[in-house]
Amino acid sequence: MKKILVLGAGHSTPYLISYLLDEAAVLGWQVTVADKNLDMAKMRIGGYSQGKALSLDINDIAMRTQLIREADIVINFLPPNFQYVVALECIQSNTHMITASYQDERMPDLDKEARRKGLLILNEMGLDPGIDHMSAMALIEKIKQRGGTVLAFRSYGSGLPAPESAANPLRYYITWNPRNVIMAGETGAQYLYKNKIKILPFHEVFQRTWNVSLEGIGKLEAYPNRDSLKYQSLFGLDKVHTMIRGTLRYPGWSETWLQIVRLGLPNEILKISDIGSYSYRDLVEMFLPLYAPGANLEHETANFLNISPTGKIMDNLKWLGLFSEDKIQTQGDTAADVLIDLLRRKLALPSTARDVVAIYHELEVGYSNRRERVVSTFIEYGDIGGYTGMAKTVGLPAAIAAKLVLTGKFKESGCLIPTNSAVYGPVLQELRGMGYAFKERSEVIG
Amino acid sequence: MKKILVLGAGHSTPYLISYLLDEAAVLGWQVTVADKNLDMAKMRIGGYSQGKALSLDINDIAMRTQLIREADIVINFLPPNFQYVVALECIQSNTHMITASYQDERMPDLDKEARRKGLLILNEMGLDPGIDHMSAMALIEKIKQRGGTVLAFRSYGSGLPAPESAANPLRYYITWNPRNVIMAGETGAQYLYKNKIKILPFHEVFQRTWNVSLEGIGKLEAYPNRDSLKYQSLFGLDKVHTMIRGTLRYPGWSETWLQIVRLGLPNEILKISDIGSYSYRDLVEMFLPLYAPGANLEHETANFLNISPTGKIMDNLKWLGLFSEDKIQTQGDTAADVLIDLLRRKLALPSTARDVVAIYHELEVGYSNRRERVVSTFIEYGDIGGYTGMAKTVGLPAAIAAKLVLTGKFKESGCLIPTNSAVYGPVLQELRGMGYAFKERSEVIG
Repeated sequence: MKKILVLGAGHSTPYLISYLLDEAAVLGWQVTVADKNLDMAKMRIGGYSQGKALSLDINDIAMRTQLIREADIVINFLPPNFQYVVALECIQSNTHMITASYQDERMPDLDKEARRKGLLILNEMGLDPGIDHMSAMALIEKIKQRGGTVLAFRSYGSGLPAPESAANPLRYYITWNPRNVIMAGETGAQYLYKNKIKILPFHEVFQRTWNVSLEGIGKLEAYPNRDSLKYQSLFGLDKVHTMIRGTLRYPGWSETWLQIVRLGLPNEILKISDIGSYSYRDLVEMFLPLYAPGANLEHETANFLNISPTGKIMDNLKWLGLFSEDKIQTQGDTAADVLIDLLRRKLALPSTARDVVAIYHELEVGYSNRRERVVSTFIEYGDIGGYTGMAKTVGLPAAIAAKLVLTGKFKESGCLIPTNSAVYGPVLQELRGMGYAFKERSEVIG
Repeated sequence: MKKILVLGAGHSTPYLISYLLDEAAVLGWQVTVADKNLDMAKMRIGGYSQGKALSLDINDIAMRTQLIREADIVINFLPPNFQYVVALECIQSNTHMITASYQDERMPDLDKEARRKGLLILNEMGLDPGIDHMSAMALIEKIKQRGGTVLAFRSYGSGLPAPESAANPLRYYITWNPRNVIMAGETGAQYLYKNKIKILPFHEVFQRTWNVSLEGIGKLEAYPNRDSLKYQSLFGLDKVHTMIRGTLRYPGWSETWLQIVRLGLPNEILKISDIGSYSYRDLVEMFLPLYAPGANLEHETANFLNISPTGKIMDNLKWLGLFSEDKIQTQGDTAADVLIDLLRRKLALPSTARDVVAIYHELEVGYSNRRERVVSTFIEYGDIGGYTGMAKTVGLPAAIAAKLVLTGKFKESGCLIPTNSAVYGPVLQELRGMGYAFKERSEVIG
């Protein structure tokens, strides 16, 4: 009997686990879901007899090692900082691993050993990263077969409120791990624009935005998403003058978040002891260099950041609760933890609202006699009161890949992301069969 | 026969290894030095028969595991990002570990398992961190025994050129792992000042400086060193209104480095492929948002950073070679790697120069009838043409601790830093015996 171990039972896992349990019933697998929150794990399993819920402190090395050793495959939906160590233990235990997170920069170090043991360590197997890579590769491959050369590659991904649901000042809801929203951009970003490499540190990422319009959703803003350059070789795009992966938000998000970054709040390293004894105002004050007792904190903050004390950004910071006199509520002990908790509460998806996930590829393609603009769009709405678009599209690729591994359909080994047709081909086919498909159009531009 | 494995053979290891080889000759130990650069490892071993030099790619998991398994103790002088995984494998292999690096934030996760197995995983066992913690604890303990209460704790550490040797525009030489100079401040900093917590993001750290004078060295500048707050409880300082750990440089370093950080160059994540095909000028241009062909790069950079195009900071950036038309020379592929290589060459310690390491504790102490200012200073000069002050003082605490572990003098287990008198007591005693001592003075201030 094949054993699947799912690590983590958060936002992105319900559809994934439900899919695996359905397959498990047919194929006779066992699915173990382990989370520090046992109730959460139990809820994901529901009444399925093939499912088992466990409470796991991921830092309990003995239990972690034991579970990984017993599993045939681990689907690791823990926060990204556990990717490397879980992969290392999977390789030590002869267990495959799949994640939906960006590949950790240390993962290539494990590639040789994974290959030697014939193990698949597959990362970036979600929506963005995941479906975006797979669909981009399929599109690029099709263009090459038609004799075209990709001259510019722009690709955008996002999870947003549906337009009619975008009812808060930031026009954003948390539908995935809020930690990843809070720490977005932390390692900076780089991309290629008109043959020039452009690199940004964290404190500049949300300053470098531009508009993108999506049909049915409207005018959005994009900011550069991590390292676009590394996908140039991974996607085989050696002739592009522009290579940009961007993240989409409704306009206004980035100008507000830029100031939160400049203030320094997205910090998950520095721990503040007894953080619950401070108010949100106290926390903001900690990030100001000088603060004369009696001064107006809102004005001092606006002055420090060089923004209007009465403008929209300041309104948004106030609306988020950063200037509240209430005591801080958080399970954690860093300023990032405070933001996570604030956003979780202020930006919770209302039960009457739905989300939408979107991937939008925009390519400039050269043929012998013309240039074309090729646009490929994937839009998936969540179901009000049911699965979010995010849960469906982040969880499904990992689940499908796990099935393909366990049924012997994948022969690949090593530390990979899904840019290989032997991986993305069957996964995209299965997704299409379930109704998840891209709409493509092209126009001659020169 | 006891086996010591030293991982890494860089700047900070020659004195450490020499000390261990001398002890090994007496006590019949074996010392293996493993580095990716075999010649470096061989040079450290010299002609000692108790020593063995090995070439090790730390990402060769099989060989790494084998070496750790065979050792009784690992002295890990690899870059800090390997601390966690080496510690994990030491615990799996029943091997003790000592490092001179700051304790990784994930280390407490390993504490339970280390205790269960009776293993000592001792971090921050160098100069700063290391001798600074141990001497601070000894001083605080003495003050408490005298009935004093520490009201303010300021502690500074640094490795600098000796005043007569500080002959370049930045008045700094690289005498330890340059990576740690380049990435200093990357996680931000926090401290307590007059009962207020102050927190800074990376892009503000080098902006928050103040002057400190050291006898024999002169006027220096300090910037806040990482997380000072966490040492408040580690040092048992529950009554302080001010708690600051700072790093010392000659004045002018921070105003220059601040701009390098604002530009975004200290980034070790984003890889630039074929980096050697670009010039240093090209690299700087990558960090500017806009650059019109033909514009003056120096002026555009100054404008972007809002600094004078003709001032001292710009002079320093030019002197470092950032505006050179030469092709980039580096073994690596990130902007941080380029800085490492530039600093290694531009800031190399001349053979006729010597360095100095300094630790300076400045405490305000309350007694029932008075307040005192207590100052404790440790200054150690390097030997021209011999060991640097840095190599002596960073390597020795780890070496002494290793000896104490192997000779059964330490009974402690778990993931520790040396704030425990059972650890710092014998180490300071041995250091004093070798002539490494603090000078202390105090004055009544109220």
